[in-house]
Amino acid sequence: MVLKSANISLKRALPDNDPWAVVRHFLFGHPLRTSSQEKESLGFFLGLPILAIDALSSVAYATEEILIALSVAGTSLYGLSIPIAIAIVILLTSVIASYTQTVQAYPDGGGAYTIAKNHLGSTASLVAASSLLIDYILTVSVSVTAGVRAITSSYPSLLDKSTSLCVLGILSLAWINLRGIRESAKFVMPFVYAFIACMLMIGGLGLSIPSPQEIGQSAPVASSASLTTHLLDLAMIPIILRAFAGGCTAMTGVEAIANAGSILRRPHAVVAQRILLALGLLLGMMFLSITITAYRLNLTPLENESLLSQVIRALWGGGFIHNATQILIALILFLAANTAFADAPRLSAMLARDGWFPKQLYIIGDRLVFSKGILFLALLASLLVIVFRGQVHALIPLYAIGVFSAFTLSQAGMVLYWRNCWRTGGNHRGSFIIKGMVNGFGAFMTGLALMVTFEAKFAEGAFLILIAVPLIILFCLWIKRHYTATTEQLDVSNSFISSRIRTFAHSQERPIIVPISRLHRGAVEAIAFAREMSRDVRIVIVDIERYNAQQTIIDVEALQWDLKIIVLSSPYRSIIRPIIDYIHSVDKESKKLAVLVLPETVPVHWWENILHNKTSETIVKALSWSETIESQARIIINVPYYLEKN
Amino acid sequence: MVLKSANISLKRALPDNDPWAVVRHFLFGHPLRTSSQEKESLGFFLGLPILAIDALSSVAYATEEILIALSVAGTSLYGLSIPIAIAIVILLTSVIASYTQTVQAYPDGGGAYTIAKNHLGSTASLVAASSLLIDYILTVSVSVTAGVRAITSSYPSLLDKSTSLCVLGILSLAWINLRGIRESAKFVMPFVYAFIACMLMIGGLGLSIPSPQEIGQSAPVASSASLTTHLLDLAMIPIILRAFAGGCTAMTGVEAIANAGSILRRPHAVVAQRILLALGLLLGMMFLSITITAYRLNLTPLENESLLSQVIRALWGGGFIHNATQILIALILFLAANTAFADAPRLSAMLARDGWFPKQLYIIGDRLVFSKGILFLALLASLLVIVFRGQVHALIPLYAIGVFSAFTLSQAGMVLYWRNCWRTGGNHRGSFIIKGMVNGFGAFMTGLALMVTFEAKFAEGAFLILIAVPLIILFCLWIKRHYTATTEQLDVSNSFISSRIRTFAHSQERPIIVPISRLHRGAVEAIAFAREMSRDVRIVIVDIERYNAQQTIIDVEALQWDLKIIVLSSPYRSIIRPIIDYIHSVDKESKKLAVLVLPETVPVHWWENILHNKTSETIVKALSWSETIESQARIIINVPYYLEKN
Repeated sequence: MVLKSANISLKRALPDNDPWAVVRHFLFGHPLRTSSQEKESLGFFLGLPILAIDALSSVAYATEEILIALSVAGTSLYGLSIPIAIAIVILLTSVIASYTQTVQAYPDGGGAYTIAKNHLGSTASLVAASSLLIDYILTVSVSVTAGVRAITSSYPSLLDKSTSLCVLGILSLAWINLRGIRESAKFVMPFVYAFIACMLMIGGLGLSIPSPQEIGQSAPVASSASLTTHLLDLAMIPIILRAFAGGCTAMTGVEAIANAGSILRRPHAVVAQRILLALGLLLGMMFLSITITAYRLNLTPLENESLLSQVIRALWGGGFIHNATQILIALILFLAANTAFADAPRLSAMLARDGWFPKQLYIIGDRLVFSKGILFLALLASLLVIVFRGQVHALIPLYAIGVFSAFTLSQAGMVLYWRNCWRTGGNHRGSFIIKGMVNGFGAFMTGLALMVTFEAKFAEGAFLILIAVPLIILFCLWIKRHYTATTEQLDVSNSFISSRIRTFAHSQERPIIVPISRLHRGAVEAIAFAREMSRDVRIVIVDIERYNAQQTIIDVEALQWDLKIIVLSSPYRSIIRPIIDYIHSVDKESKKLAVLVLPETVPVHWWENILHNKTSETIVKALSWSETIESQARIIINVPYYLEKN
Repeated sequence: MVLKSANISLKRALPDNDPWAVVRHFLFGHPLRTSSQEKESLGFFLGLPILAIDALSSVAYATEEILIALSVAGTSLYGLSIPIAIAIVILLTSVIASYTQTVQAYPDGGGAYTIAKNHLGSTASLVAASSLLIDYILTVSVSVTAGVRAITSSYPSLLDKSTSLCVLGILSLAWINLRGIRESAKFVMPFVYAFIACMLMIGGLGLSIPSPQEIGQSAPVASSASLTTHLLDLAMIPIILRAFAGGCTAMTGVEAIANAGSILRRPHAVVAQRILLALGLLLGMMFLSITITAYRLNLTPLENESLLSQVIRALWGGGFIHNATQILIALILFLAANTAFADAPRLSAMLARDGWFPKQLYIIGDRLVFSKGILFLALLASLLVIVFRGQVHALIPLYAIGVFSAFTLSQAGMVLYWRNCWRTGGNHRGSFIIKGMVNGFGAFMTGLALMVTFEAKFAEGAFLILIAVPLIILFCLWIKRHYTATTEQLDVSNSFISSRIRTFAHSQERPIIVPISRLHRGAVEAIAFAREMSRDVRIVIVDIERYNAQQTIIDVEALQWDLKIIVLSSPYRSIIRPIIDYIHSVDKESKKLAVLVLPETVPVHWWENILHNKTSETIVKALSWSETIESQARIIINVPYYLEKN
């Protein structure tokens, strides 16, 4: 008999009398209906900021990373920064092209994990997912630490509160994201567009100023003749590779656009492609123009001023505009973590859906985001900040590894995808070959970049990835194994069901044990309930000095409720042990598990519990220690008696 | 029907399968039978060390306290140390005499609390009890801190671990005392007797050496002429009173002997009187002789060496004997805390028995001591050490206040006791008057001492007592009020009982709600149990994307168990809210509280719980928020299904 219950009062989103719900809804906003998912989705102008902020923010440091790597050989190699930047832009173009095809094939979110799962098997998919998750956690920690460092360098008195400020920053980001993807996108939007405008202006201005050669200045950088000599020197190759790897940090965050298709307005693929294209163009232009400007201005990386700050100072002087842009850049570096908050919970949810992660991560919260995933990310990032204090910066080298692992795996997967398409055939077989080649080229390029960055950054910490990724995968395997085993064990067979066909009459003779200390109202309540369940109710009284057992026996007998009264002696004054021994003896005698009915007096305030013995709880705990596997499925019923305020 | 159950397996003291019990018994020894209480009791030679160590240890610093107070006026008043010590010994004699009468009247333990309760009312008894408890906590903190300071002054590298060492010391003492009073007494016995022998030797040797005058040395102390001048100077009075108050610290711990009568061998009173007498003699002799010796040796208190150490150095030189006695004294100061551990839990237990303290403190542990009281004392003393770090020393002035409050109240109570005896008459009426006078004199003397010490130490921290004592009393009143109200509320009336006469047949139509997500074994188990309890079993299924509601409906219908199936929609994706709303609607419809049967899958290891949603727990929590007072007594039955190891 199925009763389609009327939708009781569920028009209201706020439950009654639940103080936490009120606080929750105040902090995070009114719950959103499942059906309003479409309304929450993001168009191009809202989608670009939140999904691209991570990648765009990297122009604030990518050029500097290249120059730092080159500076090992003095300023003589600085001229190489431009060809290296061009190589990176080519790589970026290939990645963007590849991902444009990927989102078409997987419009609902085709990140490295999904593609690897479908085409490369579960191990590859877990490698991709764990590399990305490490990256996202790092992004949050590093971004927030950078933001806090910007604050503490202006207010040194806050320096010893850095860690607390970082955790506060992470929690604020988590909070914004828990309010929903739209709120989060709206929040970052103005800053991102201001940042884009600002960077484009800097780039334009930088390209328009005369080059050092033009103004007749002797270039501090090597002439092209000496540059060529250098290039022929084999010892320079690692330096150049390292510079390339440093610049590749510019490409983190591209993955998020492919992965988060489902949060975009329909058609997902078209919006995602537009965002990818815009990101590619903007990032390429900004990165190249800033690298060229830095070279033209003869700038060199300094310990205490960022390269970008030097560029701005050189172009606009050190006044108000400089300060304002510095604040904007600090804010963008901080908010870059938002891309991680938008994508990591989505990735965790996919893993949870497939049984690799705890399934709670797949729960969609009040505001249609994966709230537990957001909290999980905030927790891990905070832990990282707390454990490493200010040293999170040292983990930046790990970034590129994770990104390029994911890139390579997703592009490689796409090659197999197009091969499948080609095999299953159809009209467009020719186009599949071309598409496969685009992705193949992407896979090759990013694979190469992966090897280069890995080699370049191995000693700096990249080897940690070789430890962390397998650990995460082992964890996933353990979880999957647990879920699989649980599902198997919980599977119902017909024989199991028929063994459980018990009807009402069966229970009449089931022994029910009610331990009491004295016959107060709570005890009467429990006994009354026990009598409803069976005709074999046994009142257990432990005879120790503290309790007046004789009085209790008289009181229970006076009820005339036809109860069995069992008095247990306890030479060692334990209340619990005699009861447990008695329960086991009843189990043995009746050959089934006795049901335990425990009276429980519940005080008005939780802290009043310290004034009560909580014997019931202790019995339950002691039982769980003393029982054998077969007897563990015992049913224990707490009959509460609520005290009133006095 | 009363079944005197056979004493199932309780000959064994160790339960099966309880790993904690095994650890507990390894650490604290085998449980002792209630009937072996007499065997655990202490005779004179074991009782003296444990009950007197606190008082005896004070000779290590009492003389110094007098001299420090006198040194405010330079060395000119040092000659007064002897008359002051004599005054203190007279006070001690009066206290010992009073308590000798007290233990006769209350052989089972007649501390200030019991006597004040019987003769002065509950407020006075709480004042006495809380002063003493504060004293005991201070004793533990201060003794252990002193012991640790002795260690760190030899091993300065341990200095920054002082607090940890203090807590470790407190825990060690708690551990020894948890092993039982006999073990604790046996442990301190050799040290106490060695200390007594050592102090008597020092005293004897000190009295036998020639006085400064005899050896013709010019005494650095003032001649009796100038002393008289000083005495006439009114400004000197506060200094002298302060010196007297300082010396009174010698008398802490006498109370413990009167209070702990019940741990002594029978007849309690005789053993207690012997111990009191021995303590009085030993303490008086040791204190006087050391004070005289210090005077004769022209010693003055130093910052970095204790007076007693100077005495020993002067008599025996600074070699091995000096070092060995120093170690012994440090050990005795540390172990002085044992008196507090022997008596404070007993006092707390009395308060708990009378409903002023949480009743758990009245539970007698495996080793026949009040284990929770011991832990409680250790916890509070550790907190004090942690909060005040090394500054616990500053709290020493509070000692004497607590002791003299208790002394005065107990003696005053005894005066009323003898008056009662005199009124009720009998043969010994004359002796009652004399006894009353002895106690009256004791009360007068200790009352005077109380006022002097209070005045002298007020600014040094004695005012804290005026804050702490009322706070403790308020806490006691709150507890008593809670217990009284609880007992009243839980009292059963005939009408209550008759309203609970429900028999087996009553429950058949009681609605039972079983929320399930899918029909796994755990769900089947819960449904089967629910069917035993009622014919109105309602299976509740929440229809949200994550769960396949349609499949679950089909599965439940396939059981053909005549169940009502309720499908609830949930536009906001909450699983909990629709269930709770449904429960309330059933309550309303059936006009009684629906019983909730919750399937619960229990994993093998507790940490595997992170992989499960624990929906049951959440439902229970949410229900407790959303229910009204009337509906709180709902019965919720968890039907466990235990997963097996895979």
